[in-house]
Amino acid sequence: MPVMYNRVALIGLGLIAGSMSLAIRRGKLAGEIVGFAKSAETRAVAQEINLVDRVVASAAEAVQDADLIVLAVPVGAMGSVMAEIAPHLKPGAVVTDVGSVKRSVFDAVIPHIPTGVHFIGTHPMAGTEHSGPRSGFATLFDNRWCLIVPPEGVDQSELDRLCAFWRGIGSNIEIMEPDHHDLVCAVVSHTPHLIAYTMVGVADDLRRVTDQEVIKFSAAGFRDFTRIAASDPTMWRDVFLTNKDATLEILGRFTEELFALQRAIRQGDGQQLFDYFTRTRAIRRGIIEAGQDTSAPDFGRAPTKS
Amino acid sequence: MPVMYNRVALIGLGLIAGSMSLAIRRGKLAGEIVGFAKSAETRAVAQEINLVDRVVASAAEAVQDADLIVLAVPVGAMGSVMAEIAPHLKPGAVVTDVGSVKRSVFDAVIPHIPTGVHFIGTHPMAGTEHSGPRSGFATLFDNRWCLIVPPEGVDQSELDRLCAFWRGIGSNIEIMEPDHHDLVCAVVSHTPHLIAYTMVGVADDLRRVTDQEVIKFSAAGFRDFTRIAASDPTMWRDVFLTNKDATLEILGRFTEELFALQRAIRQGDGQQLFDYFTRTRAIRRGIIEAGQDTSAPDFGRAPTKS
Repeated sequence: MPVMYNRVALIGLGLIAGSMSLAIRRGKLAGEIVGFAKSAETRAVAQEINLVDRVVASAAEAVQDADLIVLAVPVGAMGSVMAEIAPHLKPGAVVTDVGSVKRSVFDAVIPHIPTGVHFIGTHPMAGTEHSGPRSGFATLFDNRWCLIVPPEGVDQSELDRLCAFWRGIGSNIEIMEPDHHDLVCAVVSHTPHLIAYTMVGVADDLRRVTDQEVIKFSAAGFRDFTRIAASDPTMWRDVFLTNKDATLEILGRFTEELFALQRAIRQGDGQQLFDYFTRTRAIRRGIIEAGQDTSAPDFGRAPTKS
Repeated sequence: MPVMYNRVALIGLGLIAGSMSLAIRRGKLAGEIVGFAKSAETRAVAQEINLVDRVVASAAEAVQDADLIVLAVPVGAMGSVMAEIAPHLKPGAVVTDVGSVKRSVFDAVIPHIPTGVHFIGTHPMAGTEHSGPRSGFATLFDNRWCLIVPPEGVDQSELDRLCAFWRGIGSNIEIMEPDHHDLVCAVVSHTPHLIAYTMVGVADDLRRVTDQEVIKFSAAGFRDFTRIAASDPTMWRDVFLTNKDATLEILGRFTEELFALQRAIRQGDGQQLFDYFTRTRAIRRGIIEAGQDTSAPDFGRAPTKS
């Protein structure tokens, strides 16, 4: 694959930016990758492990002469970072973000985009429960989907180039409108995370069942929830604050269904429970057939230490 | 390890019984393993893959001269199976079950236990989303916990023998009282399963987000829920019907917490969300330190096909 952007600037050096850097190198998609993170410790680690080609001390310096700028910070920080870098962008540069929410990022970022600079939102639908500069790996995006969310009046050739870039990183791509993006993510990502956090919080808080019991016996189902409930708290706080409406809508639907099942339990309606539990098996099969999860039992977890 | 029961009879030949058979063989814990399942197809598969030493055509025949009888059928079927085998048990035999609920199994089974026959409940806290005779494997119970639930007045030497048997299968064991068992399981297993089923059902049912979108973008969190929501519907129907009170209690706590977080989202209370999401990370660490889950990102899932 040819170099697609001569200089790429990564603002933020966590799981997503770090994995992008490694995948960009793997695909030889950029001439140089420059990185900046607000935390001095993160910058030192990035330097130490050679995560990017050059670590710099400010966002303004990072975007100097950059052809592609990737905003990889929590959604709530996008606007202020954009305001900071705006005066330093070169004409014709492309700014993108990798935030989990799009309408709110559009509202925060687009007013700061200078004339002659392009903005196109993206959202790679991939991640792990780990965070920070050491958590990245080059294959994170392989065969995962990256949602590309262009603003109205986007430059078609820059859109095409960004799509090709994400394909080079390993992703499948799909173009989506911002409000639909936020609704889809409320279903496949935001609400599941909130529910997992809640379930783990409940288990942690019970007086009559000890933490030790919860931990020891977690293989009976609970442990699956603890993985996504170990994700980065700042990122997730911002997601819920900025995708409020869609999340509350899906939570409302969730509660409605949960109450219906709760009522079936209370009334002893075995048929309703059986039918519900049968229907949900089909989606799992679909996910496995689409190559989005493993069919190995228990996610193919390695045996744990004894 | 010496042979602990000369003849073991497995009633039901699904994931748990099949895995027990393979672990019993591995540990040379029994002289002979006899198996019965209600379904002729299951019996044929068990025979074909040599899952047990001898497949027989009735539960009554399976328990002939058996020293240990394992009831490995859905919780709702325990009472009728027990009534059927009771006249055929030899004096001194031990009956156990592997049901996910204990109070209701006690109520259904113990009235049928003949004088001179022992009953002790067990519950191995292990499983996968797969079911049926082909889903078993010998290492399923290794370093998992098996809860041993003795009735009042249990014979101590038979209790000790059964504990040693489960240790030979690979489990850690813990002795527990039936009502506490049912509460602990409502927390670590039953409520998480109901919530996962609900989340998957909601995603399946939305008009404005297609099934294809849910499937393609599931790696953003949702797919984790689909694994346990693919578990056996009959087994889970029975669990909720028979552990009604504890499940409803924990569901009530869950809903209360969920509403508090929902309110924080609505009111934009970022501090409350951040604090909650920080607290839940500790339990994940505890589970990994206790050897009950892998620390590899994404459960160490193998890369999926591209």
